[in-house]
Amino acid sequence: MRVTTIHAPGDIRLEERPAPTITAPTDAVVRVVAACVCGSDLWPYRDENEITPGNPIGHEVVGVVEEVGDDVRSFAPGDFVVVPFCHSDNTCAHCRAGMTSACTHLGITSGGQAEYALVTQAEGTLVKTDGMPDDALVPSLLALSDVMATGWHAAVASRVAPGSTVAVVGDGAVGLCGVLAAREMGAERIIALSRHEPRQALAREFGATDVVAVRGKEATEAVRELTDGIGADSVLECVGNGPAMRTAFAIARPGSTVGFVGVPHGIELPVARMFGLNVGLAGGMAPVRRYLPELLEKVLSGAIDPGRVFDLELPLDEVAEAYRAMDERRAIKVLLRP
Amino acid sequence: MRVTTIHAPGDIRLEERPAPTITAPTDAVVRVVAACVCGSDLWPYRDENEITPGNPIGHEVVGVVEEVGDDVRSFAPGDFVVVPFCHSDNTCAHCRAGMTSACTHLGITSGGQAEYALVTQAEGTLVKTDGMPDDALVPSLLALSDVMATGWHAAVASRVAPGSTVAVVGDGAVGLCGVLAAREMGAERIIALSRHEPRQALAREFGATDVVAVRGKEATEAVRELTDGIGADSVLECVGNGPAMRTAFAIARPGSTVGFVGVPHGIELPVARMFGLNVGLAGGMAPVRRYLPELLEKVLSGAIDPGRVFDLELPLDEVAEAYRAMDERRAIKVLLRP
Repeated sequence: MRVTTIHAPGDIRLEERPAPTITAPTDAVVRVVAACVCGSDLWPYRDENEITPGNPIGHEVVGVVEEVGDDVRSFAPGDFVVVPFCHSDNTCAHCRAGMTSACTHLGITSGGQAEYALVTQAEGTLVKTDGMPDDALVPSLLALSDVMATGWHAAVASRVAPGSTVAVVGDGAVGLCGVLAAREMGAERIIALSRHEPRQALAREFGATDVVAVRGKEATEAVRELTDGIGADSVLECVGNGPAMRTAFAIARPGSTVGFVGVPHGIELPVARMFGLNVGLAGGMAPVRRYLPELLEKVLSGAIDPGRVFDLELPLDEVAEAYRAMDERRAIKVLLRP
Repeated sequence: MRVTTIHAPGDIRLEERPAPTITAPTDAVVRVVAACVCGSDLWPYRDENEITPGNPIGHEVVGVVEEVGDDVRSFAPGDFVVVPFCHSDNTCAHCRAGMTSACTHLGITSGGQAEYALVTQAEGTLVKTDGMPDDALVPSLLALSDVMATGWHAAVASRVAPGSTVAVVGDGAVGLCGVLAAREMGAERIIALSRHEPRQALAREFGATDVVAVRGKEATEAVRELTDGIGADSVLECVGNGPAMRTAFAIARPGSTVGFVGVPHGIELPVARMFGLNVGLAGGMAPVRRYLPELLEKVLSGAIDPGRVFDLELPLDEVAEAYRAMDERRAIKVLLRP
């Protein structure tokens, strides 16, 4: 099959490799209908993470079940499924507590920008639709495999409440989904920090009431002004680097929580400020499976349309261009079809 | 009047200074009935904080109102009051949100180990009893000015819930009050980390169901074993240094929250671990005034007796010995009477 691999920073290739096979009774193989490029895929692409040359890459997938292991009872070949990027048995103590991303049998989709993907712990991980979904729904369903669930997690972690004022740091696809999540949770005011006009426009369509188009200290001042000097009730940190985290803590009101979902790179947490102002930090790798039933319902009912973060669609053969487009910020997020 | 001052590490003196006077209409002067030494007073005593030689010290006070400014309407000379260590107007946006320790008119009791103490924002800060309390209640009332409210805040911040498993790092007076708070909040299992027998005994009387009498990695292993490898649902970090914080994060289950209330010294937060396991951090300087009505009721009804953390009582004249006794861990916490 064709699968995307990374060989060095900036070096993305589509190669022929054997398709995955069932090696454990808990496995499933899914034929990929759509995949995409994640902001976190850009870390190695930009030389900010170590690379094992030739490793397959990609972890966001929707598709059709091709084959299942003997212990997989709820899914059969032909089922259309959303594949959470982290695989979980959904029965261990952590899963039962809702923390599926810390499952004792945790797996991660690897090599999902491909024709086929392997899902470990398929029984506890996959969620299927009733029959084949309309093709127009595929982007929003794909968004549930990671980006929308991750934005949702940021909103949950930062305790977004009805009527509250929420600030979202980061205008990537996760940040935009965070805006959408805050709207769904009833936030009254949603301040999106974004300097890019197409992203500002989508943020507004997703529910942002205010856009702050500056960075750093200027952004802090702007949010303070918008909130009468108080700060935001909840802050979603959807980037994962030091400047974004500093801004997040600077605009969080005393007693609030910063919800963080960007894989941390070069972050030193401001513990003295956190202590003095009682600003907490919560979040991490999103427990996608936990949120999936609720989010799937919202997509199927048309309440949310997170697939709108995909502003470019390419055939899998052009995956290298997909990475370039995201790296150069020509695209918010690129959907790939094998 | 006599007031305690610090001149250098280990150099605590009782000196004659002018008594405080009303300089703002929001002030009150309180005649100190009882004061005490806080774990945080030991930081400068042990050369871990900068010292301004000759500065008054002490921030935990109960006493009798001596004089009030023109804007103080709810209190009059003769009222017995608990003085939260942080003074707040109780009307600003932060106070209204319950974050009284971030009040826009924040003040801190300074020089409370003395005959008289100044309270700024007296109207919003003080809480009085009906008439003079029984002398036997004074220690528990004094504990409400900081240590019990701080332990309570750790439990609130770490989201202690009925039926949950709680671990408390730190067997100082705050940690012990954290155990008591967890019991009041309905925790089913309370694991106290303590290597000192008198403190272990008090921890058990306050509600600890298990005591872990080792430190560092051994403590982590012990808590894991006690929790079937899962970790604690809530962790109270009641010390404020690096080793305590590392232990706290090591024993917190995925998805849980570490509540921290020890003034941070030399702490580097494990952001990668926090992200990977979704362990949050919340807490900070306790909003004492917010909790005071509830805690006062609990003390007056006999539901809690936090005054038991005082295992030594000395006249104010022996304040230097009070510091020595706490520094050498001969006493958990020392009550001072002017």
